[in-house]
Amino acid sequence: MENKLKSMGLAAREAARSLALAGRKEKDRALREMASSIRSRRDSIVEANGLDLEEGRKAGLSEPLLERLTLDDGRIESMAAGLEQIAVLPDPIGSGLGSYINEDGLEISRVRVPLGVIGMIYESRPNVTADAAGLCLKSGNAVILRGGKEAHHSNRAIAEAIGKALGNVGFPAGAVQLLDDPGREATQALMALDSLDVLIPRGGKGLKAAVKQHAKVPVIMTGMGLCHLYVDSSADVNMAVRIAVNAKAQRPSVCNSIETLLVHSDVASRFLPPLVKAMEEAGVELRGDDRVRKVVSMNPAVDDDWDTEYLALILSIKMVDSLDQAMDHIHLHGSGHSEAIVTRDYGNSRRFLDGVDAAAVYVNASTRFTDGAVFGLGAEMGISTQKLHARGPMGVEQLTTVKFRVSGSGQIRS
Amino acid sequence: MENKLKSMGLAAREAARSLALAGRKEKDRALREMASSIRSRRDSIVEANGLDLEEGRKAGLSEPLLERLTLDDGRIESMAAGLEQIAVLPDPIGSGLGSYINEDGLEISRVRVPLGVIGMIYESRPNVTADAAGLCLKSGNAVILRGGKEAHHSNRAIAEAIGKALGNVGFPAGAVQLLDDPGREATQALMALDSLDVLIPRGGKGLKAAVKQHAKVPVIMTGMGLCHLYVDSSADVNMAVRIAVNAKAQRPSVCNSIETLLVHSDVASRFLPPLVKAMEEAGVELRGDDRVRKVVSMNPAVDDDWDTEYLALILSIKMVDSLDQAMDHIHLHGSGHSEAIVTRDYGNSRRFLDGVDAAAVYVNASTRFTDGAVFGLGAEMGISTQKLHARGPMGVEQLTTVKFRVSGSGQIRS
Repeated sequence: MENKLKSMGLAAREAARSLALAGRKEKDRALREMASSIRSRRDSIVEANGLDLEEGRKAGLSEPLLERLTLDDGRIESMAAGLEQIAVLPDPIGSGLGSYINEDGLEISRVRVPLGVIGMIYESRPNVTADAAGLCLKSGNAVILRGGKEAHHSNRAIAEAIGKALGNVGFPAGAVQLLDDPGREATQALMALDSLDVLIPRGGKGLKAAVKQHAKVPVIMTGMGLCHLYVDSSADVNMAVRIAVNAKAQRPSVCNSIETLLVHSDVASRFLPPLVKAMEEAGVELRGDDRVRKVVSMNPAVDDDWDTEYLALILSIKMVDSLDQAMDHIHLHGSGHSEAIVTRDYGNSRRFLDGVDAAAVYVNASTRFTDGAVFGLGAEMGISTQKLHARGPMGVEQLTTVKFRVSGSGQIRS
Repeated sequence: MENKLKSMGLAAREAARSLALAGRKEKDRALREMASSIRSRRDSIVEANGLDLEEGRKAGLSEPLLERLTLDDGRIESMAAGLEQIAVLPDPIGSGLGSYINEDGLEISRVRVPLGVIGMIYESRPNVTADAAGLCLKSGNAVILRGGKEAHHSNRAIAEAIGKALGNVGFPAGAVQLLDDPGREATQALMALDSLDVLIPRGGKGLKAAVKQHAKVPVIMTGMGLCHLYVDSSADVNMAVRIAVNAKAQRPSVCNSIETLLVHSDVASRFLPPLVKAMEEAGVELRGDDRVRKVVSMNPAVDDDWDTEYLALILSIKMVDSLDQAMDHIHLHGSGHSEAIVTRDYGNSRRFLDGVDAAAVYVNASTRFTDGAVFGLGAEMGISTQKLHARGPMGVEQLTTVKFRVSGSGQIRS
C-alpha cells in the first residue's frame, strides 16, 4: 500500500509542476472535456452506481444513505454542468495581492500560486469526486481522491471518465488520481503521505478523530457543524420561529443546520408554544432542559445533547437569562461553523457578531446560508471549521497559496 | 505536566476571548507598557541572562551560540523599541476583506479576526520572547511561549516584565504565558494541547521532526531554509559573484542565506575563478562536484551536501547544463524558502519566477532580502516554509483568520 501511494504521490508532484504553469484556457478546456466525458459515459456510471447500491442494500445501508449514494441521469448531468460552471469561474492563479518597490529598489509582488498536491478524503456522495477534481484542476493543483467505500464502483467510473478527458487534452494522469482501495490502511497512509501539501478530510466525528491520530501533513478539516440559534429577549417571535424551523428542518443532514436552540427566559413563554407547534408540524423531535420543560412539555435533554451533531430532525432547547450566557454556551459547545441570533436590539446584534467566534455569524437570518455559492465563492470543496488557512466555505481561492516575486538589478543586503 | 498545561490552555482561551474584543488603543497602550516594563527591569534581565550564560559555558555551548544568547543594555533597548514599533503598526483586526449584498438581501462581509490561542516554540535568542508576545497581542491572540532551555532564566525575567505590564493595564495574565519547564515532555504536551488554534515552531531539522511526530494541532513550520543561487549562462559575472558572496557570507547563520550554488556550464570557466577568490576572502569553505573541481580545485561535495542546511561558512557548488536542470535540482533539494537566479535573459528570468516553487523567488538579487521588514510586513514571527495559511515572512496579518458577518432581516433558505 505504502509503495503504491508513494508512486501516486510522485506522479501527483510531477503533475503539479506542469499544472502550476498551465494557463486558464488549457485548464478550462480540460474542465469542459471532463464534463463531456462524464456525459458520454453516463450509462457505465449508472451501471457502476447500480453495483454500489446493490452492495449497499446487502450491507443494510439506511434509505437516506442509499438515496445520497444514488446517481441517476439528472445527477450525472448536474455533475457535468458543475464542471462547466467551474470553467467559467475566474482563474485565481497569478492574480496579484499587492506589489511595491522597496527602498533598495527591489520590485516585490505577491501573487497567488497553487498549493501543489491536495489529498481529499470524503465519505459521502460520489459527485464529490467530480467537484473536487474540478476545483483542484482549476486552481492548478494535483489531487489524490479517496472516496467512501460504499461508493467505490461509482467513484472509479467517474475517475475513469475524468482520466480519459485529461488524456484527450494532454494533461498528465497524475493530475487527478483516485486511491481505489477500500482499506483503512490506505486512508491512514494517505494521511501521512509526504508529498501532500494539504489533506482535506470531509466528514464527521469519526474521520476527524482518525485525522487527529494519524495525519502527518497539514490539514484543513471540513464538514463538522454544531450550530446554534439564540432567540434574544427582544426577538420578533414570528421571525424567530420561521428562522428556527428553516435552520433545523429544511435540510437536517447538512453541517449548517442547527442542533441547539437557546432562548432568553424573558421571551420563552411567548416563543416556545408556537415554536413547538411549528417544529411538530415539521416532524422535529424536541429535547428541552428543565426550565424549558416547565413552559412546554417535551423530552428531556441530557448533557450529551449539547455536544451532539444530530444531522437529523432532533433539536435540543436550553433556556438562558442573558446574551452572555448564550455566548458562553456557544463558546463551550459550538464547532465554530455558523451561529445566529434573532434580536431587535442593536447593541445585542453587535455584541453577538463581535463576540461569537465562528466561521459565519448571523443576525436575523438562517444558518443555512453558509455555503460557497451564497457567499460568492462559486462551488465549494467543503466548509472549514478550523481557523488556519481557510475558514468557512472553501472555493478555488482557498486552494491557493502565495509567492513573493522579487525582481532586482544586482541588489545585495547590507 | 499535562494538567499544568491544560490549565494554561484554559487561561489562554479565556484571555483570547477578551483580547479579541480589545480595541487598538488598549492593545497599543499594553505594548508600550510592556516596553517600559522591560526597560525598567533591565538590570534584573541582564542578571538572569548572566545565569544562562554561566550555565551555557559550563555546558560547553559554542561561542556563536553564547553570543546569540547574550543580552546587554543595547539588546534590551532594541527589544523594548521593537514592542513600540509593533504598537505603531496598523491593527489588522476588524479590517474588511470585501462585502456585498446577496440575492436574498443578506449583507455579507468578511473581516479579519484573531486566530485565538497560539503556541510558539523557539530555540534561539531570548528577544523572541518579547517579539512574539508583542505580535500576538497586537493581533488579538493569546500566546503560550516555550523558549529554549539555554535561555530559560532570561525568558522568565522577560516574561515577568511582560506579565507585570499586562497587569498594570488590566489585561488578563493568560494573554502571554511562558511554559517555564525545560523538559521534553513539556514541549510534546504543548504540541498536542487541544486549546491551541495553531502551533508555530521556529527552529531547525530536529524541531521539525519532533513536530511531525508529536503535533496534534494545526502547525505553521518556520525557520528552515535550504536556498539556492543559480548562475545562468547569460549572467553578469561580476554581479553573480557579488550576490553569491552576500547570499552566503553576509550572515550565514540565518535561514535566508544560500547553501548551494548552481552554475551553468557555459559560464563556469569565467565565473568560478573569481567566485573562488571572493569566497576565500570571505572565509567560505567550498565543496564542488566533479565538473566544478575540473575548473577550479576545492573539496569534493558528497550527496549529503545537497540536502544540508550548513548555517555556516560552507557552500556546495554544482554544475548544470540548462535552466531546467537547475530548476529540477531546486525542486528536489530546496526547502521552499528563497531561490534566486542571476541572468540577463528575459525569458529565463520569467521561467525561473514562474517555475520555481518557493515562498520567495528572486531575479538578480540576494536571497538575504526575505524578511518581514523588507517585504513590508513589519516585525515577523518567523518565515514560513509551508504553503498552508502563511508562506514567507509572517507579520501580524498572518496571525489572523477571517469571519463572515451576515446581517439579515428574517431571511430563510428555500
